[in-house]
Amino acid sequence: MNEHVRALATLIAMSVPSVAIVGGTGKLGAALARRWAQAGYKVVIGSRDGARAKEVAEALGRELGRHIDHDLNRPAAERGEIVVVTVPYAAQGETLAEIRAAVLGKIVVDTTVPLVPPKVMRVQLPPEGAAAVRAQRLLGDAVTVVSAFHNVAADKLATDDVIDCDVLIFSDEPAARSRVVELVRAAGLRAIEGGVLANSAAAEALTSVLIFINKKYRVDGAGVRITGGLTEPDDE
Amino acid sequence: MNEHVRALATLIAMSVPSVAIVGGTGKLGAALARRWAQAGYKVVIGSRDGARAKEVAEALGRELGRHIDHDLNRPAAERGEIVVVTVPYAAQGETLAEIRAAVLGKIVVDTTVPLVPPKVMRVQLPPEGAAAVRAQRLLGDAVTVVSAFHNVAADKLATDDVIDCDVLIFSDEPAARSRVVELVRAAGLRAIEGGVLANSAAAEALTSVLIFINKKYRVDGAGVRITGGLTEPDDE
Repeated sequence: MNEHVRALATLIAMSVPSVAIVGGTGKLGAALARRWAQAGYKVVIGSRDGARAKEVAEALGRELGRHIDHDLNRPAAERGEIVVVTVPYAAQGETLAEIRAAVLGKIVVDTTVPLVPPKVMRVQLPPEGAAAVRAQRLLGDAVTVVSAFHNVAADKLATDDVIDCDVLIFSDEPAARSRVVELVRAAGLRAIEGGVLANSAAAEALTSVLIFINKKYRVDGAGVRITGGLTEPDDE
Repeated sequence: MNEHVRALATLIAMSVPSVAIVGGTGKLGAALARRWAQAGYKVVIGSRDGARAKEVAEALGRELGRHIDHDLNRPAAERGEIVVVTVPYAAQGETLAEIRAAVLGKIVVDTTVPLVPPKVMRVQLPPEGAAAVRAQRLLGDAVTVVSAFHNVAADKLATDDVIDCDVLIFSDEPAARSRVVELVRAAGLRAIEGGVLANSAAAEALTSVLIFINKKYRVDGAGVRITGGLTEPDDE
């Protein structure tokens, strides 16, 4: 019986992909690592700083009573079946260049919001139209970029609270969007597909609007919900 | 007594601004005209086509038992204290050029969403970054552009239904945003200020995302709500 349980556990472990989080020691990355580890995913936290990756992975592991792996960004990206990039906009180009060869043929979930300090309340989309489109150009056609998690407040995500915010998911590949829908749900959030990668501009721009709203209306976690009675989508 | 009632009615009429709706025979314009007329505003429906303006104004007037005025776009714009422009993106440039001299010193509420048929489910923001920024450049600094109403389904707005969608309001002039907040509330909608005019990109882009969602999830009026427990804002 114990063997059957072990075999079943192995099968389940095989059915959930391993997720590498590049820039995983930041607020958003660590919060996602925590939620995915809780959901039973194999998580590797990547960082430019190996000692910091170890520190964050071990702290989360102790908190959750689970093992969370860690590595430098590039080897972490090599180990992930799905690679999630959670770095600031200013580090996007350099980070994607670093992991490029490690993510060929994979799904890369880019979470970059093109905030340009100090004017973070002003929408300043990049010349490519969206940071996600920029990511796709930098990584090339052998990588499938999906963008998501633009509007969720990282400090709320770092708790077990139910988050009153949808996650909009964009990609030129519908099948890749569907895989990321599962990943978003595993993090306890409602996932809504928003179309092609160029449409990521909407969610990326919305973040500056939400930062403005937080200040104007004196709240600390404005988010966004799509209304209209959406239920499960049919396959495209 | 009757005279006092009349005097009071006159005072109330003086306290609400007259609103001209340029392109007011379209779905969005007519729906807004209907709601503002119901709220007691003096409404002028403008159109390129005088006969069509008359037809729509009279039909709405009959339905509501109220007088709704009509005119060609430019004289309508001259008569409005606040001028709302509800024309398709392709007609934005020509329409604004036509009313430019009539709106000097006024607030112009631009509702333009830069949809580029046939790919209306793909975000295609203009080179200026947002249709609202384009409007401000076309109208010049003597006009205060405020953008709003990008995400509300016109066919729902044309009914008395409560609409499950917020209206995001953008302008570089906070005082102008506040005036449009009142206008949005008068139309029965929740108004949320979203910051500077450049931020209009977020709401404009979101419309293509909502059109995608309507198709993907087979709903007919996806909308957007800002979450986070917003209450009345303090003045800036």
